[in-house]
Amino acid sequence: MRLSQFHLRTTKETPADAELISHRLMLRAGMIRKLASGLYTWSPLGLRVLRKVEAIVREEMNRAGAQEMLMPTIQPRELWEETGRWEKFGPQLLKVTDRKDQAFCYAPTAEEVVTDFARNELSSYRQLPVNFYQINTKFRDEIRPRFGVMRAREFLMKDAYSFHLSQADLAREYRNMHAAYTRIFSRLGLEFRAVLADSGAIGGDASQEFHVLAGSGEDALAFSTASDYAANVETATAAEPAPRPAPAEALRRIDTPTQKTCEAVAELLGIALQRTVKSIAITAADGTFVLALVRGDHQVNEIKLAKVPGLAGYRMASEAEILAQLGSEPGFLGPINARQPIRVVADRDVAALADFVVGANQAGFHLAGVNWGRDLPEPEVIADIRNVVEGDRAVDGGQIRLARGIEVGHIFQLGRTYTQALGATVLDENGKAAVMLMGCYGIGVSRIVAAAIEQNHDANGIIWPDAMAPWQVAVCMINPKHDPAVSAAAQALLEELQAAGLDAVLDDRGLRPGAMFADIELIGIPHRIVVSERGLIAGTYEYRARRADAAENLGKAALLERLRAG
Amino acid sequence: MRLSQFHLRTTKETPADAELISHRLMLRAGMIRKLASGLYTWSPLGLRVLRKVEAIVREEMNRAGAQEMLMPTIQPRELWEETGRWEKFGPQLLKVTDRKDQAFCYAPTAEEVVTDFARNELSSYRQLPVNFYQINTKFRDEIRPRFGVMRAREFLMKDAYSFHLSQADLAREYRNMHAAYTRIFSRLGLEFRAVLADSGAIGGDASQEFHVLAGSGEDALAFSTASDYAANVETATAAEPAPRPAPAEALRRIDTPTQKTCEAVAELLGIALQRTVKSIAITAADGTFVLALVRGDHQVNEIKLAKVPGLAGYRMASEAEILAQLGSEPGFLGPINARQPIRVVADRDVAALADFVVGANQAGFHLAGVNWGRDLPEPEVIADIRNVVEGDRAVDGGQIRLARGIEVGHIFQLGRTYTQALGATVLDENGKAAVMLMGCYGIGVSRIVAAAIEQNHDANGIIWPDAMAPWQVAVCMINPKHDPAVSAAAQALLEELQAAGLDAVLDDRGLRPGAMFADIELIGIPHRIVVSERGLIAGTYEYRARRADAAENLGKAALLERLRAG
Repeated sequence: MRLSQFHLRTTKETPADAELISHRLMLRAGMIRKLASGLYTWSPLGLRVLRKVEAIVREEMNRAGAQEMLMPTIQPRELWEETGRWEKFGPQLLKVTDRKDQAFCYAPTAEEVVTDFARNELSSYRQLPVNFYQINTKFRDEIRPRFGVMRAREFLMKDAYSFHLSQADLAREYRNMHAAYTRIFSRLGLEFRAVLADSGAIGGDASQEFHVLAGSGEDALAFSTASDYAANVETATAAEPAPRPAPAEALRRIDTPTQKTCEAVAELLGIALQRTVKSIAITAADGTFVLALVRGDHQVNEIKLAKVPGLAGYRMASEAEILAQLGSEPGFLGPINARQPIRVVADRDVAALADFVVGANQAGFHLAGVNWGRDLPEPEVIADIRNVVEGDRAVDGGQIRLARGIEVGHIFQLGRTYTQALGATVLDENGKAAVMLMGCYGIGVSRIVAAAIEQNHDANGIIWPDAMAPWQVAVCMINPKHDPAVSAAAQALLEELQAAGLDAVLDDRGLRPGAMFADIELIGIPHRIVVSERGLIAGTYEYRARRADAAENLGKAALLERLRAG
Repeated sequence: MRLSQFHLRTTKETPADAELISHRLMLRAGMIRKLASGLYTWSPLGLRVLRKVEAIVREEMNRAGAQEMLMPTIQPRELWEETGRWEKFGPQLLKVTDRKDQAFCYAPTAEEVVTDFARNELSSYRQLPVNFYQINTKFRDEIRPRFGVMRAREFLMKDAYSFHLSQADLAREYRNMHAAYTRIFSRLGLEFRAVLADSGAIGGDASQEFHVLAGSGEDALAFSTASDYAANVETATAAEPAPRPAPAEALRRIDTPTQKTCEAVAELLGIALQRTVKSIAITAADGTFVLALVRGDHQVNEIKLAKVPGLAGYRMASEAEILAQLGSEPGFLGPINARQPIRVVADRDVAALADFVVGANQAGFHLAGVNWGRDLPEPEVIADIRNVVEGDRAVDGGQIRLARGIEVGHIFQLGRTYTQALGATVLDENGKAAVMLMGCYGIGVSRIVAAAIEQNHDANGIIWPDAMAPWQVAVCMINPKHDPAVSAAAQALLEELQAAGLDAVLDDRGLRPGAMFADIELIGIPHRIVVSERGLIAGTYEYRARRADAAENLGKAALLERLRAG
């Protein structure tokens, strides 16, 4: 490939409306162009990267035994109603009406259609297990599309769906997909972690997310220093706290005229924030008033709280409800209640406290030296309802560390959620109809491109991992018009590199070295070779890895050796 | 690949609602499954074929210097309004409203978006010429989707768009694309013809269609026996007729009480149908009443008629208009009119007639022995307004032959239709803004799959050309359980074939030979090899080409030689 024959259009300007570095760099490199909110055209340069990612995903899915197929992007309402998702999916589902007034949606995912395909195509356990996948355009009508292709409305996704007769076989395929995903992200050259995830609205039992690690990532992740344990903070859990100490203080009421936060109360009393307790007033779906208690230095985790029996679908209590139940305004709430017994859900770390501080349910007052069993009943429910924090003891004995990640893959054991709703059965070994078990496995193909940039860039632009680069190697010519030997040598080198199996490009645009190098760095080519008159005389080429501080002059054999090493 | 690991599901039943043989065979082979009207899921088997077609299209487009990119399928109304096509495209355009009440369409083609991309990306003549293409899903909301993927609503299309500074350069790229298309359809192994086409609603000057020849094709094509001349009958033209003979008969009125057609009149008079003339009453867009005349044995060509100056947008005249102008009911109309002069457009073959028969503009009567210049004025307009027929003399001196074809590609010289509307200019060599010229080049990727089957099938199923086949070679085992050597030999042969670069599959499903062979024939594998105990003893394999009448027993060397020959 010669750059003079390739449409490349870089810009120096930093686009005003692009917040994320990947978005800015993709625009500056000319990889994408915005068509409308959340809709991007991929230029030839951008598509080269996208197709390299797609090819690796396809190869590894095939290697794992999954079978590629292709489903329509436009899908009929009737099918989505069979699972209830026509309504449940919400306004992200782009609905379409055709000329005959039939309703369809632009698929954001394809569980319904693939399960319909499976119920028609699969009739016997002998056809199982099977894993169908596609790499196809999806659409999610985001309320606020942003960050370029990181959260576009139209995007490229690999979605796979497996069908099984037994839970054990589903678990086996789930591990198989875990291994395939690990190979995919490893081959792409990305730093990533598989983390336990909340399976959320999609339902089902077990799920893991694959995250590309990057400081700008939307998701907070927790790792253990002692093992492979990793989880989204939505679900990450710390080790059980140490046993509760014996009470040492007497219960006392203290004046806290303006102290409405744990921080303010701890400062006033000169005690550690860890000895204060936050009381969060909520109302369960059945109307029950509940106080959720977490330590002053912790944050309540709403996803965990909603998993406490009886609290699915809870909401924050209104001020009127709080006043009616506790007789106090917010800022001074606590679990010791003179009026009536209050349901209490205590975080494990709160249940392990002695001599702690809570609100007195009276404006301007808190209670200190509070102890379970003595000053108030033992908590009715003890559960993990907080976010882990950096330094927590992990369940495996290590320490919890936090990092940020960008979700690029997700694997689920769905179980029978969709197959039951759609009646997808096969005859089992005994000739009895059995509802199949199902797994689903997604990869955000276009999102990977942006995530890779978030993880790999510097002040000069993108730094592609070799496997994703539009070209692995750029051959740059200095002053070829002045010395035709330079042009001939560069062309010969290009052919030699290509013959060695390297995806190389020749920059024959005739730019000055500064502008040429700036482009090659901006678009992130991992390896740059400069062919110059001086080098030809010395019998060397100037080689520079994109991440290296300096260039080195190498003979051809050493150069090829270096490139082969990657 | 082993078929036991592949999802294959063939059926014997002929689907009731499938009219076309390709539709029936694709359903029976399990290549596609209907999701909703005009929407099809491609199974793993079907997708293997689709991807092979796609890969050849991509390779040849790249070889021709076109650059792949990717545009959103969902496109904003504003852009389609800039060219007027938001309305003009009609109800085939699937319109979509997003959650913010913004209007979009699902792209049926991408002239607007690519021209918008070009006007933003291209600023100098130095960036020209350039040819951008994508292979992407399109949607056309057909009023009556049918014939499976032949006329689906959602389909896979390759669309390319080139930009130029001069007409000469556009013509050069048009020839370049013509050559690329010729390579594509040749490599696919299809019998095809490039034919002159009417450029229709898309506008522009020059266009050719690429048709796969098949008796079931929707389009009628005309070829010359003497040259490469080929055209859609919409535009095909025959040679000028021989000069008009001198009048030999007197004008006379004849009784034709019930003879309202040329056929009936010719039979009554005992003359050749060629000597009768049909009068078609039409009303021009400006309200002028016109009689279009074609020979009794010819059919008027509405596309050609509409190209006669003044007749763009004509319609058939109403009975009231006919009565007012000619004083007669239909069935007896003619160009000799007592009431008032009538505008006449005569087909070239009518203008060349002497002693012909027309209606008398009086119910129950015709006129015979009619001659131009004597009985009525010479025709005001003489034009080619008829369809060619088999046996016509071609412009190159050959004879016209008719065939039927399926349009699978179309190349256009669009000129400035879209670039003008969207203001897509570059600075030319003199620094002046110049509106670019544009070409566009489409291939119906998914349609090719169906068209190939229409052309290549027999009573047992599909007969794929090698390049499109899901696998080129099937290795079938007879009784492998009885003789493990058969299974081992088949597996070894599979690996040998794959090592030789052949896309081979092993049928290890354990079916009886009859059922196995029926499947392999139905799904159209071009080459079948049978490994059996008897063959192993004799040191031979049974080879049968899908089109061959019988199988032959070959040693391995001869077998590989045969397969390499293709």
